[in-house]
Amino acid sequence: MATIKPSVPKGTRDFSPAEMVKRNFIFDTIKGVFRKYGYQQIETPSMENLSTLTGKYGDEGDKLMFKILNSGDYLSKVDPAKLNVANSNQLVADISEKALRYDLTVPFARYVVQHQNEITFPFKRFQVQPVWRADRPQKGRYREFFQCDADVVGSDSLLNEAEFILIYDEALSALGLKDFSIKINNRKILSGVADVIGKSDNIIDLTVAIDKLDKIGLDGVIKELLERGFTIDDIEKLKPVILLEGSNQTKLASLREALATSAIGLKGCEEIAQVFSYINHFKLQKATIELDITLARGLNYYTGAIFEVKTNEVAMGSIGGGGRYDDLTGMFGLKGLTGAGISFGADRIYDVMEELNLFPADANQSTVVLISCFDKDGELYALPLLQQLRNNDINAELYPAGAKIKKQLDYANNKNIPYTVVIGSDEMESGLLTFKDMASGEQSKLTADEIIAKLAAL
Amino acid sequence: MATIKPSVPKGTRDFSPAEMVKRNFIFDTIKGVFRKYGYQQIETPSMENLSTLTGKYGDEGDKLMFKILNSGDYLSKVDPAKLNVANSNQLVADISEKALRYDLTVPFARYVVQHQNEITFPFKRFQVQPVWRADRPQKGRYREFFQCDADVVGSDSLLNEAEFILIYDEALSALGLKDFSIKINNRKILSGVADVIGKSDNIIDLTVAIDKLDKIGLDGVIKELLERGFTIDDIEKLKPVILLEGSNQTKLASLREALATSAIGLKGCEEIAQVFSYINHFKLQKATIELDITLARGLNYYTGAIFEVKTNEVAMGSIGGGGRYDDLTGMFGLKGLTGAGISFGADRIYDVMEELNLFPADANQSTVVLISCFDKDGELYALPLLQQLRNNDINAELYPAGAKIKKQLDYANNKNIPYTVVIGSDEMESGLLTFKDMASGEQSKLTADEIIAKLAAL
Repeated sequence: MATIKPSVPKGTRDFSPAEMVKRNFIFDTIKGVFRKYGYQQIETPSMENLSTLTGKYGDEGDKLMFKILNSGDYLSKVDPAKLNVANSNQLVADISEKALRYDLTVPFARYVVQHQNEITFPFKRFQVQPVWRADRPQKGRYREFFQCDADVVGSDSLLNEAEFILIYDEALSALGLKDFSIKINNRKILSGVADVIGKSDNIIDLTVAIDKLDKIGLDGVIKELLERGFTIDDIEKLKPVILLEGSNQTKLASLREALATSAIGLKGCEEIAQVFSYINHFKLQKATIELDITLARGLNYYTGAIFEVKTNEVAMGSIGGGGRYDDLTGMFGLKGLTGAGISFGADRIYDVMEELNLFPADANQSTVVLISCFDKDGELYALPLLQQLRNNDINAELYPAGAKIKKQLDYANNKNIPYTVVIGSDEMESGLLTFKDMASGEQSKLTADEIIAKLAAL
Repeated sequence: MATIKPSVPKGTRDFSPAEMVKRNFIFDTIKGVFRKYGYQQIETPSMENLSTLTGKYGDEGDKLMFKILNSGDYLSKVDPAKLNVANSNQLVADISEKALRYDLTVPFARYVVQHQNEITFPFKRFQVQPVWRADRPQKGRYREFFQCDADVVGSDSLLNEAEFILIYDEALSALGLKDFSIKINNRKILSGVADVIGKSDNIIDLTVAIDKLDKIGLDGVIKELLERGFTIDDIEKLKPVILLEGSNQTKLASLREALATSAIGLKGCEEIAQVFSYINHFKLQKATIELDITLARGLNYYTGAIFEVKTNEVAMGSIGGGGRYDDLTGMFGLKGLTGAGISFGADRIYDVMEELNLFPADANQSTVVLISCFDKDGELYALPLLQQLRNNDINAELYPAGAKIKKQLDYANNKNIPYTVVIGSDEMESGLLTFKDMASGEQSKLTADEIIAKLAAL
């Protein structure tokens, strides 16, 4: 067999033991918080029927989906004339009927519709699974990456929105983030803004322009609005809204004034006020809540609240986002089921935590103690200790006899094992084993029972 | 948009919250034991380059691999003449360069070779990820299923084999299995058996035949051996080996006698004896160890120990297996690295546990307590209690105000929530909340603090 230089497909990654421990720390923390709030885990297949996915993510999404070639003689039923034309787009439907999951939301909608008779509503589910997109790989963008979503369907209570804020606050604080903002907006406020200047049909143009305030400043936004057909008069009316300042309550008061003539706009204000009112009954840990009407992410499907989370400690895009959508399952024929959901950007959170050095020092420890011995006699002597350690739920390894002690201690160091026990002939004779703290280098002579007691107490 | 009747691709599955809790119980238990023995988790991408996978699983495997269609205009570089021929097999290489992972072993070998300079050997890794095979779906066989593997590479110590037996014993006992057999054989013993009848070249025929002893009995095996070209004389020599009886030590003694003229056969006996000797220093929980020389699974790549695990409580195929292979990474150019590994059959273990009712009664509880209220006032009254419960790490939900209490209690029942707190106007006035044990139906009036104390003590 020819030797192949092994590699992974571009845009995909191996995760080493050290990376896995850190990733598990993030996922386990977030999952624990989801569960604490009553969300239950589901999983869906990695592949879905193309009929389930196609058309749900726009043309771009259809293109970036990884399609799976039909198995067996996949060309046997293809019209030869069609093969001659050699049109990739047209041929796809004939040779592929499945694709890899592109996000977790559409499979979730499919799940809810398919299992609607087994589900108790409101249905609070979370899902942590990889998704695949044939994007051009670049720094921080992968072709296989994990999404980490919680959604509730079948409840229009704004308590759900308030709880999403609590979930973000609790999970990110538990991960060690100390300063982050949860931005909130409401699609109905954006509709109201377009409403009051009589440009309801231009809401997309409007929001695309003001979404850039952070990047291009007020002058830039005005220029863009003019280019997009808004008048000087429109812009004068928009200014107080775009330049909203002060506390969330002050902003809300100004908005209510500016949107006084728009029923939908006032409804949006009321919804946000209700969410704030819920939140006031809770004590937040590290999050700052910020009403930000320039926030327009996912405008095409959100119908109520819109969320985005940003860390203020390092420069990084959003580390989370979500919102309310009123008709998620409609695409599969189940109408009138409202939902709301949030997502954690696990890869970015990982990068933030690395940069801020937030992973626990022992995050990379899998084995607590390595037993080293010089020879077969030492090995046999060590076996009962090895089992007792494990019986006490202490992760323990015995390095197989035969290797030099230096090699064994190198192994402990490389694997970040904090303690070693060395067993030579003196140790076997006296019953006092050499116990070493690898970080401090400190050594002591202890009985097997003392070692177990010491490690069990950690 | 036309309404699509939603479904999953055949051979794939959704996992409901109740199933996920059970699956997590299995995976978390096994992972915990892997870690206790010093194994570290890695993950590899779902897709691998076809050059990595092709030819590693035989023709059948190549056929059953799910190939991923190249993205973009995948036909643009295909020779039109080739399209005209319309040969599915020949075209594949032109329109697909990646496939979904078929098992965890080949990606692991690729990982070891690719990262050999970062790895400290012996490298003890575990991996729990889905794999995909385009098999014909049938009861208990899926196109997407999880494998759960632990392997060590770079150590030829038989302590590793002994520890695999301990891992099986500890993990399956922890899952509640009470009677299971870990069968062990050694490829070298099988070689020795072929050796002593002078038919080393026919070892595959020999093992395929005697592997069927359980199913077709001695007469059937003899018939098959004759058909496969063995002589009456051969069979007479084989009989004592095939019909090995008694304790493991007795079997081993008989084998040593029968294989006295085969160096490799005696080596195999010695290896098994060494593994038994290690195991004798440990106390096993529920496993029975059984030397079984008819065991031949994976003969084409195992070079030393061969394992298979079976439950004796219900009729079910093997729930685990593994062995030692001497040249796993050779296919990627890294020679001389010995390895050994085992696998747990998670889906079958799930079925066994369901049949024996082994999942913990609370396995399906995600939320511990549901707070129910009649109206908005009750909802606001409940918020501080809700937060205090969660601050005490008690999974808690507040049903959004507005629904009938019966509906709320149905929700608790359906979600298997064991406790509810009902808050009406009396409760708010007195501060004594109605606390209900949903299983017994027992109700009591408790303060918020008493409820928290009670639930925290569970």
